[in-house]
Amino acid sequence: MSQAAADIAARLLAGETAAGARAIRWLDDRDPRGSEVLSAIYPHTGRIHVVGVTGPPGAGKSTMTDMLVAEWRARGRTVAVIAVDPSSPFTGGAILGDRVRMARHALDPGVFIRSLGTRGQAGGLSRSTHDAALVFDAMGFDVVIVETVGVGQDEIDVVNLAHTTVIAVVPGLGDEIQAVKAGLMEAGDVFVVNKADREGYEAAHRQMEMMLHLRALALPDAAWPVPLLRAVALTGQGGAEIIDAIEGHRAWLEEAGEFARRGALRAREQVAALLHEELRARALALTGDDIVAAVAARRLDPHTAARQIAASLTERNHPA
Amino acid sequence: MSQAAADIAARLLAGETAAGARAIRWLDDRDPRGSEVLSAIYPHTGRIHVVGVTGPPGAGKSTMTDMLVAEWRARGRTVAVIAVDPSSPFTGGAILGDRVRMARHALDPGVFIRSLGTRGQAGGLSRSTHDAALVFDAMGFDVVIVETVGVGQDEIDVVNLAHTTVIAVVPGLGDEIQAVKAGLMEAGDVFVVNKADREGYEAAHRQMEMMLHLRALALPDAAWPVPLLRAVALTGQGGAEIIDAIEGHRAWLEEAGEFARRGALRAREQVAALLHEELRARALALTGDDIVAAVAARRLDPHTAARQIAASLTERNHPA
Repeated sequence: MSQAAADIAARLLAGETAAGARAIRWLDDRDPRGSEVLSAIYPHTGRIHVVGVTGPPGAGKSTMTDMLVAEWRARGRTVAVIAVDPSSPFTGGAILGDRVRMARHALDPGVFIRSLGTRGQAGGLSRSTHDAALVFDAMGFDVVIVETVGVGQDEIDVVNLAHTTVIAVVPGLGDEIQAVKAGLMEAGDVFVVNKADREGYEAAHRQMEMMLHLRALALPDAAWPVPLLRAVALTGQGGAEIIDAIEGHRAWLEEAGEFARRGALRAREQVAALLHEELRARALALTGDDIVAAVAARRLDPHTAARQIAASLTERNHPA
Repeated sequence: MSQAAADIAARLLAGETAAGARAIRWLDDRDPRGSEVLSAIYPHTGRIHVVGVTGPPGAGKSTMTDMLVAEWRARGRTVAVIAVDPSSPFTGGAILGDRVRMARHALDPGVFIRSLGTRGQAGGLSRSTHDAALVFDAMGFDVVIVETVGVGQDEIDVVNLAHTTVIAVVPGLGDEIQAVKAGLMEAGDVFVVNKADREGYEAAHRQMEMMLHLRALALPDAAWPVPLLRAVALTGQGGAEIIDAIEGHRAWLEEAGEFARRGALRAREQVAALLHEELRARALALTGDDIVAAVAARRLDPHTAARQIAASLTERNHPA
């Protein structure tokens, strides 16, 4: 391990904010020192409570995250936030607005906020988020909130890493926007109708009740009684109840042996995501332009090409 | 090749709708006969014009697709539509509504509409879409429209397969929802402000003008003069101008040698996506529970685990 990585790992384990930020940047940039730090800190991880906050655009997720941070701080817990942001530079205004709203925590060493954008590849965001959560874990944070827009496979992959997933919806969004994917619906542990002071609250509440009813029919073995709460995150209303529900879910996870089981699932997901990236890099390097040219010229079809490359990589070592 | 696959390939090449539908279902289901069909038809592909239609939720993409189909049919072109639908069963109503709206083309053999949902894995949607586009290509369709919600990495991967990408926005959506990712913004070849009869059109138009100005600064070498059009897709207004712009873009692509170049890029993307899936399946089968257990128990970190597996698969055959 390089001296720089060893130094960052030691400072990060002592809880130093700047060292944590450096490690996350290295990991996000795929700097090899990031992997070195991660190897060093990994034995010290496994305690943090990973809480996902997701929902359709406009559901007030960042305001809700802000409220949850404030409530947890009032209870003496330290909180890290990973704001997964699939938006473009063109939305700088909105993002800046969100981050400014979070600024009331800026001087609190018990709060650490980090935004991660989508990477150029499917699965890249998932890897960066996993890695950042491990860094916060090693730094000793009690909770990490992963805040993400609930649209797209990449976001579902991110939700898969949470112990507890909070799904926020709001009154008055159209069906198309309100749409919560089946995968997310099944992943939700706590549901919140945010902006509950708005017109249409009753209808939104009924819609969610119906969805949860359908879910209960689809998942008859689910033992956790999924709560449906109301909030006005902008004024802090409902925050205590949401935290109670999240903490209750964690207690339930531990009693049911689910905390460890979800950790193991996460380990598998994370190895798979990393393996993915490793293999793609190696495979594309080995593919070469000749095969691509043959496919482009219609001399070879893409399915056969992919199978040939995969076979050349794996079969001689591992005969079936 | 199995007799069933040979039969479907032959009927598909003769333009038979039912055979095309069967091939797409096999490919989407990862039925091995799908790959057999694809190998047989691949030499007959490479002519279709792949047009992506994307934008934020609520931008009226399916109405716009419907309008483009009608306009192309009026010009004597055959059109296939791949509606990429990352939504859940819970939005069944909305989707049904869209498809019913498309029903006016249902009896027209020159139109073929197929919806594809997200697969369980990142990248899976991209593969299914590529495959379906090849089937339509072999069936002799002139154009295939790939309609997708412009959010999420998976959708960007889908857009990457288009020769021409149309990006739709609408007046009056909030900043967060209006957000078009940088990747999509750069991928756009034709921009449309849809629902142009709504309040806020002028502001939306100005916002897009500004974005296109920023884009021109960021991409000084881009030679195609990106048009910004207006439409009221529900009434068909603006359809002819959009088709003119798309056809103009295709002519420009061919003149500039870009049609072949984008085809080659697509070949690379497609092989990479398929290789991805092949390798993940093989690698996870070889990973085994022991490595996952070691990672879950903190005896091995995930980065090292992934590198070790990748190395065991590839390095003995291909020493660096």
